[in-house]
Amino acid sequence: MPIQKPRTLSGFMELLPQKQALFDAMVEKLRRVYALYGFADLDTPLMEASEVLLAKGGGETEKQIYRFQKGDSDLSLRFDLTVPLAKYVALHQNDLAFPFRRCQIGKVYRGERAQRGRFREFYQADIDVIGDGKLDILNDAEMPAIIYRAFTDLGLTRFLIRVNNRKILNGFYAMVGQQAQAGEIMRLVDKLEKIGPEKVRAALTQDLGLAGGTADAILDFMTIHGSNANVLAALEGYRGRDETFDLGLDELAAVCRHLTAFGVPESHFQVDLTIARGLDYYTGTVYETRLLDYPEIGSPCSGGRYDNLAEYYTEKQLPGVGISIGLTRLFYVLDEQGLLNEDRLTAPAEVLILPMTDDQAPAVELATALREAGVRTQIYFENKKFKQKMAYADKLGVPFAAILGEEEIAQGKVALKDMTTGAQELLTAQQAAQAVHAALAGRRDAAPIRERPGGASA
Amino acid sequence: MPIQKPRTLSGFMELLPQKQALFDAMVEKLRRVYALYGFADLDTPLMEASEVLLAKGGGETEKQIYRFQKGDSDLSLRFDLTVPLAKYVALHQNDLAFPFRRCQIGKVYRGERAQRGRFREFYQADIDVIGDGKLDILNDAEMPAIIYRAFTDLGLTRFLIRVNNRKILNGFYAMVGQQAQAGEIMRLVDKLEKIGPEKVRAALTQDLGLAGGTADAILDFMTIHGSNANVLAALEGYRGRDETFDLGLDELAAVCRHLTAFGVPESHFQVDLTIARGLDYYTGTVYETRLLDYPEIGSPCSGGRYDNLAEYYTEKQLPGVGISIGLTRLFYVLDEQGLLNEDRLTAPAEVLILPMTDDQAPAVELATALREAGVRTQIYFENKKFKQKMAYADKLGVPFAAILGEEEIAQGKVALKDMTTGAQELLTAQQAAQAVHAALAGRRDAAPIRERPGGASA
Repeated sequence: MPIQKPRTLSGFMELLPQKQALFDAMVEKLRRVYALYGFADLDTPLMEASEVLLAKGGGETEKQIYRFQKGDSDLSLRFDLTVPLAKYVALHQNDLAFPFRRCQIGKVYRGERAQRGRFREFYQADIDVIGDGKLDILNDAEMPAIIYRAFTDLGLTRFLIRVNNRKILNGFYAMVGQQAQAGEIMRLVDKLEKIGPEKVRAALTQDLGLAGGTADAILDFMTIHGSNANVLAALEGYRGRDETFDLGLDELAAVCRHLTAFGVPESHFQVDLTIARGLDYYTGTVYETRLLDYPEIGSPCSGGRYDNLAEYYTEKQLPGVGISIGLTRLFYVLDEQGLLNEDRLTAPAEVLILPMTDDQAPAVELATALREAGVRTQIYFENKKFKQKMAYADKLGVPFAAILGEEEIAQGKVALKDMTTGAQELLTAQQAAQAVHAALAGRRDAAPIRERPGGASA
Repeated sequence: MPIQKPRTLSGFMELLPQKQALFDAMVEKLRRVYALYGFADLDTPLMEASEVLLAKGGGETEKQIYRFQKGDSDLSLRFDLTVPLAKYVALHQNDLAFPFRRCQIGKVYRGERAQRGRFREFYQADIDVIGDGKLDILNDAEMPAIIYRAFTDLGLTRFLIRVNNRKILNGFYAMVGQQAQAGEIMRLVDKLEKIGPEKVRAALTQDLGLAGGTADAILDFMTIHGSNANVLAALEGYRGRDETFDLGLDELAAVCRHLTAFGVPESHFQVDLTIARGLDYYTGTVYETRLLDYPEIGSPCSGGRYDNLAEYYTEKQLPGVGISIGLTRLFYVLDEQGLLNEDRLTAPAEVLILPMTDDQAPAVELATALREAGVRTQIYFENKKFKQKMAYADKLGVPFAAILGEEEIAQGKVALKDMTTGAQELLTAQQAAQAVHAALAGRRDAAPIRERPGGASA
């Protein structure tokens, strides 16, 4: 028979079991955090009618979409979780309670040019709160708390949540008479950190033709820094000159006000006026995150406030606020940097039973007892030499082997071998289960990420 | 702006939040059971190169496949989880430990003609054990234990696991000289239950031209019934006439031998010689299941032993045994029959905090404390009247509302209202968390399915 060389498509992540267990652990941690904050989990189809999915039309994304015919249907794979959410909320609006809080962790598809660390199939982990007509600003204030808790539970400590408000930016550009060029100015301001204020000033005056005074005003504004209280105080100095600005400042102040009550330390949260988020979509609060030791990977979690989620599907005004974690890329980068936590248990079983007698009934009974006690258990059924059985246990990485020979069976016990220390104990099934639970308590739920002391790698 | 009517593709299940919570609970229960038996969770791409996915070629399935071009690539969506597993094992064989035990719960795609209860996107929940060259029959024996545990944890009690062995069938047809027509005979035998032995006999003799004696021999064999011990004893009467038969009988006896040790009651397990499974694929043990009150829905969990998983991708001989649960259809049918367990908690939050003061800081602090204590908590941030806030709590179905007015704040307490009984208690945050945990202990992990006493509905 002709053999087809097996391969996985380029740009599609396919993990070996141990890595998969760590990826699953990240998903599980995020699910738990999102659930703690009262988000309903959704699971919408991966595929939609193209005229529905692409109702907004145009844009760079459209070229990347997996779109195809099946029979008479023009179908497309989802390229994010926001458009399917908009459709869902518009379609089911009468059955939902608003504010509607939903989380969704799922795969999305973008046929980008394949390159290292870029994926064509990748997970997004999204939460959004959708209001009916109105949505209180405190919903925006809660998002940093969720990001903080999510990142912390994943095992990250060295990160910063950066927040701004689009109304402040729009208002400020109105003050300096630059609404028309605001987009281009923001693109230059975005380079402040990379190329420094002199070069940005030169570009503002030479490339965009701004007056020197205007360029200075912009740079003065964009380089406002210090503690969040200081930045807010400096912004108060601009109050009263533009209504949109004032509204944005009120919103930003509200977002900052309850941080401590929400459990977010000041060290992990920063007002940053240079943050704008590319999408036209956002209309108020915007969020970005940064891993302090890996700024080059960009923002693993971003989001913001938008005025109208589902304008292409319904007349109903549905403002919302949300964040999205690009999970596949984050996992890829963390793995590359060696930050996956190898202490976390990744073996498919916690105990591998090695039967040493022809009659396997005692092994089966032991497995049933261990499973009843909540221990993940595999029986090694194959007829192999002891050495090969132990080699299998090693390759699998199981923390315990339970050796069951005639002597053990006669005593109603099992020889439980700790595969790390080599120590072996003769125990009843119940005692073995307790020993396993005690030994693994810390490793079962350990954070999937572990930063290195001292920060970044070489 | 023109409005695009939102819709979800026909044949694609999209659930409202409460139903989704029950579906998720089924997935979660299955994951837990599969994990207890030591299966490694995989998550392979939804898309593969068509020449890889369709290496086997032909067959009815191919017409149903979602296949399309993207740039130069000929791509297909997976139509089951077995072909991607075959590719995975062939591709990563050097990194895997055999026997390789994997579970995968994921969506697959088949563009079938749309009809009620048939889905084009649906979940399969699969486990397989793959051996390198050989795989002990006890792996087959463990599968019914896993099915039993999985169905029981889902909340099903009135079901039957039916088991047979293809070698017994093949051997028997060889004995009666009917190998050539075995496929057609099995299709007729499959109707035994529906049309009765007389009509099957008539079809065997008239349509297939079998001698009367041969037809009788077939009917005698296929109607062997009784306890598993009785059936096995009757089969012993055929021993010694065909090697394949004898081998199959040894295997079937081995599968039955440890049932009790594996925790499967005889009441839920039946040797049934009429089971063949349509696929040519299976070569030994075959499994089907039946919901006793809903036989018409067919077998929600099926599977069997196969000789060679990945013959299209590798020269390596990889025998395996596995089962697959058609989760989306099962959920659909259970829902239609009203068997979803409404006692299980499905609300996105366990406590909805209703702040009654302008200052929301105390509400935020309470929420943070409840979440720290593991209570899923939402704050109602919107500025609405009390009546509207309570209506929201009702629509969401939250079990508890936490009312926080000036009096409660002054006392450092909260008024915790049980939304079911209407009872209200003044408690500290810690007391409230304890009260919630105590009240919901049974409902959080309740089985997602609840059969009605007395069985089937009208």
